[in-house]
Amino acid sequence: MGRATEVDIVVMAAPLADRPAERGGIEALVSLVADDMERVNSFILSRTGSDVTLIPEVASHLISSGGKRLRPMLTLAFSRLSDYEGDGGVRLAASVEFMHTATLLHDDVVDESDMRRGKLAARMVWGNEASVLVGDFLLGQAFKMMVEVGSLPALDVLASAAAIIAEGEVWQLSAAKDLSTDEQAYLGVITAKTAALFAAAAEVGPILGGLGERERQAARAYGNALGIAFQLVDDALDYGGVSELLGKNVGDDFREGKITLPVVLALQRADEAERAFWSRTLENGDIAESDLEIAVGILRRHGTLEATVARARHYGDIAVEALDAFPDSPLRRALIETVAFCIGRAY
Amino acid sequence: MGRATEVDIVVMAAPLADRPAERGGIEALVSLVADDMERVNSFILSRTGSDVTLIPEVASHLISSGGKRLRPMLTLAFSRLSDYEGDGGVRLAASVEFMHTATLLHDDVVDESDMRRGKLAARMVWGNEASVLVGDFLLGQAFKMMVEVGSLPALDVLASAAAIIAEGEVWQLSAAKDLSTDEQAYLGVITAKTAALFAAAAEVGPILGGLGERERQAARAYGNALGIAFQLVDDALDYGGVSELLGKNVGDDFREGKITLPVVLALQRADEAERAFWSRTLENGDIAESDLEIAVGILRRHGTLEATVARARHYGDIAVEALDAFPDSPLRRALIETVAFCIGRAY
Repeated sequence: MGRATEVDIVVMAAPLADRPAERGGIEALVSLVADDMERVNSFILSRTGSDVTLIPEVASHLISSGGKRLRPMLTLAFSRLSDYEGDGGVRLAASVEFMHTATLLHDDVVDESDMRRGKLAARMVWGNEASVLVGDFLLGQAFKMMVEVGSLPALDVLASAAAIIAEGEVWQLSAAKDLSTDEQAYLGVITAKTAALFAAAAEVGPILGGLGERERQAARAYGNALGIAFQLVDDALDYGGVSELLGKNVGDDFREGKITLPVVLALQRADEAERAFWSRTLENGDIAESDLEIAVGILRRHGTLEATVARARHYGDIAVEALDAFPDSPLRRALIETVAFCIGRAY
Repeated sequence: MGRATEVDIVVMAAPLADRPAERGGIEALVSLVADDMERVNSFILSRTGSDVTLIPEVASHLISSGGKRLRPMLTLAFSRLSDYEGDGGVRLAASVEFMHTATLLHDDVVDESDMRRGKLAARMVWGNEASVLVGDFLLGQAFKMMVEVGSLPALDVLASAAAIIAEGEVWQLSAAKDLSTDEQAYLGVITAKTAALFAAAAEVGPILGGLGERERQAARAYGNALGIAFQLVDDALDYGGVSELLGKNVGDDFREGKITLPVVLALQRADEAERAFWSRTLENGDIAESDLEIAVGILRRHGTLEATVARARHYGDIAVEALDAFPDSPLRRALIETVAFCIGRAY
């Protein structure tokens, strides 16, 4: 359950063509918001500037390291879908990306991660101190940018998300190594930790556009369900996904003792020997070289990677349904394809 | 230059009576804002509540550990001084205290501190992870509370302070162990790291009261100058203060290699042997048992603790002058006494 980063999208995109039923892409979304996204990118660059040179160094290490910027694209897409014409969407999108980057910097410290998006984690280059403090700086800048937009309801949505995300992270920390974590508790954690920012990123669109409660709820529901689906697929990918194609971050969650849904479901079906295996590896952190392979074997035997992706598909359906609140348009179709794309990553 | 915590006030208060010229107290301020402060305290308690029990545990460890809550008292005092009658002051005061608590939690991780306010630092009890994440949670809650008050100008002031504080911290991190830090650079760091929150805490008072730019600037100037004075006295106290009374945190800055003003001034006056001493201890972190005593001896020989406090007195005068923008009242007199009190801590 490392926080999902969009670089995975790029890595796993190729095999999609084999499963036409779930073909989807973010190309349409990317191209429809491309102009605004360019402004978001310059905005991000200008707001990581500081006379304290360590700040742009650390921030750009992470920000320039790729990632498809799915979250800010949601803000831009839902602003446009809500016929908003001002430039507040660009600022809020940049805020959303800053919030995300800040949590990545702090996550790496919390998880003691060595790598992030295929590069050394910032904390490995500049130390934990810099990661904590530059994260705080980005969070402060995010709030400044939001205030500039001047929408109190949008501020409320994003500030609430910030608190909920941190609460989810602490929850995850408390639940780490706890084999009694059940599916409901797990969904609670990822709803807070991952989906809250997707939901907020989408909801501020209709807020900027001055639309009503119906569209706000719809955007929020889309973001929330997409975020859950995204994280579940990420969890499956961390054990190699359903296709046995091994991506580069495989095994991170296992090594960090994180109890993700594939494991929660496997624990429900576990015999005594398997329970002892999970207890030794995840609870006690006693992990040998060959244990990841054994873990993947158990998950495959019980089909829990497929079961996890099946749940992702369920949330994907909810996300698509939520879009009914908006009239058909190229952008709405692009958001539907984005759902299929996120789920298709699992294959 | 550990972040100043108000517990020092309590520890160092007694000897004040010996210097009637600088007699001052915060008793008047405390008693004038007591009713509102009680509401701030209940508010703080209610907003650290979470089903994730680790959050109230960590937060209350620090929040209940004392501290005079000088920063939120500034918000309450300047709200009242500005004839503001609503309950926004209580919420903003609680936000200010949350921002402060969040930075303390993160500071301890950055400084690898073992103790805070005479107790084990939260990170020693629950780990760095919990300190980082609970700090993030408190920051999120702080912004939520600010949004509830609904004043965009107040939000702007506090969000800017959040970014500036973090910028100051990163700056301090970059300057750590750097013997070429000069007085101006040092003042820049503490203006950002410490004074920015004092300034913002005060400025939101006249904003809530609907007063004009003159009172806003005056409140800001008071908070800024008081914050600088407060930090300078704290820096002197970290080497035992001017009275050679050793408080309990003496030597923290020295052991952490922090270049504070007493050292900056001593470096200006250093001969070759002294420069070699500072280089070995602060730059290279090669510190023997007896080195703190040697350091204090050098600072006393050059009179740089007195010189640091003289500068604090200069900022104290600026703070008092700034209050001219407000008519005489018991509250205004209490704010004047507070300045004398903060400086009197040094003796």
